[in-house]
Amino acid sequence: MFELHPQLKADSYLIGKFSLSWVLLHKDATYPWVILVPARDDLREIHHLDSDDQIALMRESCHLSEVMVDLFAPKKLNVAAIGNIVSQLHLHHVARFEQDPAWPKPIWGLLPASAYTDELRVQRINQLRSALVGEGFGAQSQYD
Amino acid sequence: MFELHPQLKADSYLIGKFSLSWVLLHKDATYPWVILVPARDDLREIHHLDSDDQIALMRESCHLSEVMVDLFAPKKLNVAAIGNIVSQLHLHHVARFEQDPAWPKPIWGLLPASAYTDELRVQRINQLRSALVGEGFGAQSQYD
Repeated sequence: MFELHPQLKADSYLIGKFSLSWVLLHKDATYPWVILVPARDDLREIHHLDSDDQIALMRESCHLSEVMVDLFAPKKLNVAAIGNIVSQLHLHHVARFEQDPAWPKPIWGLLPASAYTDELRVQRINQLRSALVGEGFGAQSQYD
Repeated sequence: MFELHPQLKADSYLIGKFSLSWVLLHKDATYPWVILVPARDDLREIHHLDSDDQIALMRESCHLSEVMVDLFAPKKLNVAAIGNIVSQLHLHHVARFEQDPAWPKPIWGLLPASAYTDELRVQRINQLRSALVGEGFGAQSQYD
């Protein structure tokens, strides 16, 4: 049974699941920031996925990217698998704006996180859940 | 006719071309750092590729990743499409080590670049060209 890394769990709200990946909203409200975690055990790198799962991850990532562009109209998306600290494979999707406090630098490890208000958290999770329908997406809030 | 962004050209040595992407070695010798640039006009985001090209990029990226792991035995690969400064779609592949000067932070914009010696540059380009055979790869040194 797939288990999400405790650090990813601590840093995020669960939005739902695609056929392959869990979809997490990062708790840092500074940027619209969504993480895909392929629900496969013991993966550290994208190329460790089998070829069907590689294609599924690409499709899910592109679907998520389209949704984030539609919802947030960013200047640029940053899509990255880094994992130097949390090695469980996870793919960041961050909507970037010329007005955001880190622009044009990458965001990781740069600034302290800013918490969501209850209202904005609920609104953002709901808008993502509505928009993500497709690629086998189902809304879910329980980490199991 | 596809044209590489002048900044990417200035920052890299051309290693060769896959079916879809040009393969560039970044001039910063601090890390083994290879960039894929899909040879399609006016692309800024991965999801702007058509679905066949999305799959080709995934295959080329995974093939390159396997080669970089074989050649350099890194602790972690960092694979990222950022593009906040150079918006032409390009996908970084950086071999990371616990001993590298940026670890565990992402590398972009963090430290001054370190130049390759002529000897190490030739050696690295040759080893990559030999190892990258597959996915339609052909060695090439001319930007056209």
